[in-house]
Amino acid sequence: MKQFLSLDDVPNLSALVSQGLQLKKDPFSDQDLGKNKTLGLIFLNPSLRTRLSTQKAAYNLGMSILTMDFDKDGWGLETSDGTVMNGKAGEHIKEAAAVVAQYCDILAIRCFPLLKNKEQDYAEKLLLDFQRYSKIPLISLESNTLHPLQSLTDVMTIEERKKTAKPKVVLTWAPHIKALPQAVANSFSQWMNQAEVDFVITHPQGYDLAEKFRGNAKVTYDQNEAFSGADFIYAKNWSSYESYGQILTQDPKWMITPEKMILTNQAEFMHCLPARRNLVVADAVLDSPQSIVIEQSGNREFAAQAVLKSILEEIS
Amino acid sequence: MKQFLSLDDVPNLSALVSQGLQLKKDPFSDQDLGKNKTLGLIFLNPSLRTRLSTQKAAYNLGMSILTMDFDKDGWGLETSDGTVMNGKAGEHIKEAAAVVAQYCDILAIRCFPLLKNKEQDYAEKLLLDFQRYSKIPLISLESNTLHPLQSLTDVMTIEERKKTAKPKVVLTWAPHIKALPQAVANSFSQWMNQAEVDFVITHPQGYDLAEKFRGNAKVTYDQNEAFSGADFIYAKNWSSYESYGQILTQDPKWMITPEKMILTNQAEFMHCLPARRNLVVADAVLDSPQSIVIEQSGNREFAAQAVLKSILEEIS
Amino acid sequence: MKQFLSLDDVPNLSALVSQGLQLKKDPFSDQDLGKNKTLGLIFLNPSLRTRLSTQKAAYNLGMSILTMDFDKDGWGLETSDGTVMNGKAGEHIKEAAAVVAQYCDILAIRCFPLLKNKEQDYAEKLLLDFQRYSKIPLISLESNTLHPLQSLTDVMTIEERKKTAKPKVVLTWAPHIKALPQAVANSFSQWMNQAEVDFVITHPQGYDLAEKFRGNAKVTYDQNEAFSGADFIYAKNWSSYESYGQILTQDPKWMITPEKMILTNQAEFMHCLPARRNLVVADAVLDSPQSIVIEQSGNREFAAQAVLKSILEEIS
Repeated sequence: MKQFLSLDDVPNLSALVSQGLQLKKDPFSDQDLGKNKTLGLIFLNPSLRTRLSTQKAAYNLGMSILTMDFDKDGWGLETSDGTVMNGKAGEHIKEAAAVVAQYCDILAIRCFPLLKNKEQDYAEKLLLDFQRYSKIPLISLESNTLHPLQSLTDVMTIEERKKTAKPKVVLTWAPHIKALPQAVANSFSQWMNQAEVDFVITHPQGYDLAEKFRGNAKVTYDQNEAFSGADFIYAKNWSSYESYGQILTQDPKWMITPEKMILTNQAEFMHCLPARRNLVVADAVLDSPQSIVIEQSGNREFAAQAVLKSILEEIS
Repeated sequence: MKQFLSLDDVPNLSALVSQGLQLKKDPFSDQDLGKNKTLGLIFLNPSLRTRLSTQKAAYNLGMSILTMDFDKDGWGLETSDGTVMNGKAGEHIKEAAAVVAQYCDILAIRCFPLLKNKEQDYAEKLLLDFQRYSKIPLISLESNTLHPLQSLTDVMTIEERKKTAKPKVVLTWAPHIKALPQAVANSFSQWMNQAEVDFVITHPQGYDLAEKFRGNAKVTYDQNEAFSGADFIYAKNWSSYESYGQILTQDPKWMITPEKMILTNQAEFMHCLPARRNLVVADAVLDSPQSIVIEQSGNREFAAQAVLKSILEEIS
Repeated sequence: MKQFLSLDDVPNLSALVSQGLQLKKDPFSDQDLGKNKTLGLIFLNPSLRTRLSTQKAAYNLGMSILTMDFDKDGWGLETSDGTVMNGKAGEHIKEAAAVVAQYCDILAIRCFPLLKNKEQDYAEKLLLDFQRYSKIPLISLESNTLHPLQSLTDVMTIEERKKTAKPKVVLTWAPHIKALPQAVANSFSQWMNQAEVDFVITHPQGYDLAEKFRGNAKVTYDQNEAFSGADFIYAKNWSSYESYGQILTQDPKWMITPEKMILTNQAEFMHCLPARRNLVVADAVLDSPQSIVIEQSGNREFAAQAVLKSILEEIS
């Protein structure tokens, strides 16, 4: 694999999923592969699971790590061309990306949308500029619109735990108090559309995801109908794509409760975490044996490791 | 050793002390023990000595390190059960601890008391919740009420330098401008009560430590009497336990001066650092050959290493 | 080499430059040298290139790294002697430096001038106190008045790319909106004065550098005259040394433009970065093949590695 910005960069999805699950059984099998290779991690906003699981994956492969917390350093990056840089931004992305890349073999970056301007956010300019100017393999640690490491984790988790050849997987919107990106939901939809599953999306009106990511997925505004017979319930809040970045409702009826889980085929409950208890999902669901959110987050390590391994094999 | 939250977790104190002093002579003797083992370090408040000495100890053992500075990330952790999480806290400790633990083999955490509510602070809920939900060996890097890595260091330092079989050790309160926790004093008392020493605590009235930690130690409000014939003077400020978290006095007469050191048996001066000069202790004491504070802080590395080694041996 | 605070610590400049360029060809040739050796990195202000390139250099040599971001921790350091420490500073540099040094084999520190008091800044008290109290080899990652790792990089870069035995090298002031230190310009001048180059400094009136650093370099206030026949143009802003810390002019005529580069002998353009585009230097220069700023920043890694290697050889 040459880079990992989205599913489009994955030549063989099922091979990558198998690789991740294999590494879970034997995480230290490839420690020579990463010897004298350095992973640069750039965080433009805070991160817990992604940071730790990616660092752990790199250690498993014997890599060195350079971490840059640009969210804390107030690192003002200029991204427009031709500007007279007499304001806050002290460095242009052209130099920043090119310089940082020289000290690394693979670069990984976490950025986030401002949720003010749909076209700007969905153009992914920052991510693509980093890719363009760094000239080394780039991994997305979540971008404005996608979170492919999470989605690979999710496909791995479903593959690992499914009880039928083609399980029914439901992505359900849930309430939140903040306007959150569509990245996890977009990305999950994109990956589910290529997985061997019966995929359904459910959310209130006005929350339809971008067509390029939801593709031909079934969409229903009736959460109960969606839950019926489901094998996996994947909950996530997102802000509106149509009324871009807006919170259209916080209706508590969309919270995931035991009553709703009863409608399913003893579905397992998934969430990318962090999850706000009793707002997104009830304690009684998260604390039940049906919840696999911890196991799911554990797979983040091996998803990252499969991606790193695949890129290391390309550049070695 | 299965965990290290206090002296209660130490099966054999003198063996642990010997181990620490042995590692000081040969710090790189166990580098295979930590191979492919990861230490997670969680800081809920800033730390200098503890952070560096523990990281160094882990490197000495060949471990990998994942560091989480949650004090800076504004990581709002919900700790109450049943709450509707519609406020600042974005994640519940149940998930946070369980997720983080999956990427680590040993977890170490630094927390601190708010000094507002004695019962809450002394219940050590955060520490115990992390222990409960992480399900892997936990090390305290200082908690609300105790600082066992400091105390192990202190016992090692006294063992290393004592000139008599049973030296007189004095813990003396000293003035400060801020309300500080009782953790270092509590912990030192607990450990001294089990060490081969003649242990005396001295402080102004109203500063008695919690009975469960001071035990049967001799307590006197007369600092001069305490200093008489002492072999080790251990200075530390703490806020009142009785009038919880209050500063009852800043009386400069309690500062450690050369005049007071003359009362001792050429005692060596100890402090866990940082020490405010000419407030807690006079320059002339800290800069004298009797001060062993630097050597003492150097032993932090080997105390941490002895603890890590003992836990690694348990889980390998 | 025993330490690296300035050019004065370098016993043999050309040997060090050769070492750096050799390591560039074979960066992993000395991994046993740094085994079980720890580099401590102290940042009292933010750093990107210096942080990453020095960390990478240490990894190349097999060293462990302890990083201390004291700019973020609000680590109030007392530096005056005899003070009653009842204010913000919680620790005296005497203890801080001595303690930190015990966990490290080599210490590196980044500090910066306040630009309020020339004598205080140029006395380099903080750097020298760290050197004095830490008692282990110290490396400057940029101090109040000098940036020797940058200068070693610059000499390496010129040595690597020069087309004549004695190229003409021009240090030119350029406009900026902030009052910046003289450190890079001072240090570059000091090193150029000992290199095999024809060295010229050009800047507006009032911007003369300290005599101890500019030495006998040719100085002209006519930028065009300076550029004539130049082989290397090194641009940098600095605030006034005479009118200490002041911005005397922001005259855009001093910006480096293609029109000015035409005056040179097809000179290569250098800058230590970050560079504000179209304020310090025009896009058309920075984006032209004559700009070597990225390659220059890449050499930071090998300059740091040459210095670390030389010190490691001294202490092994």
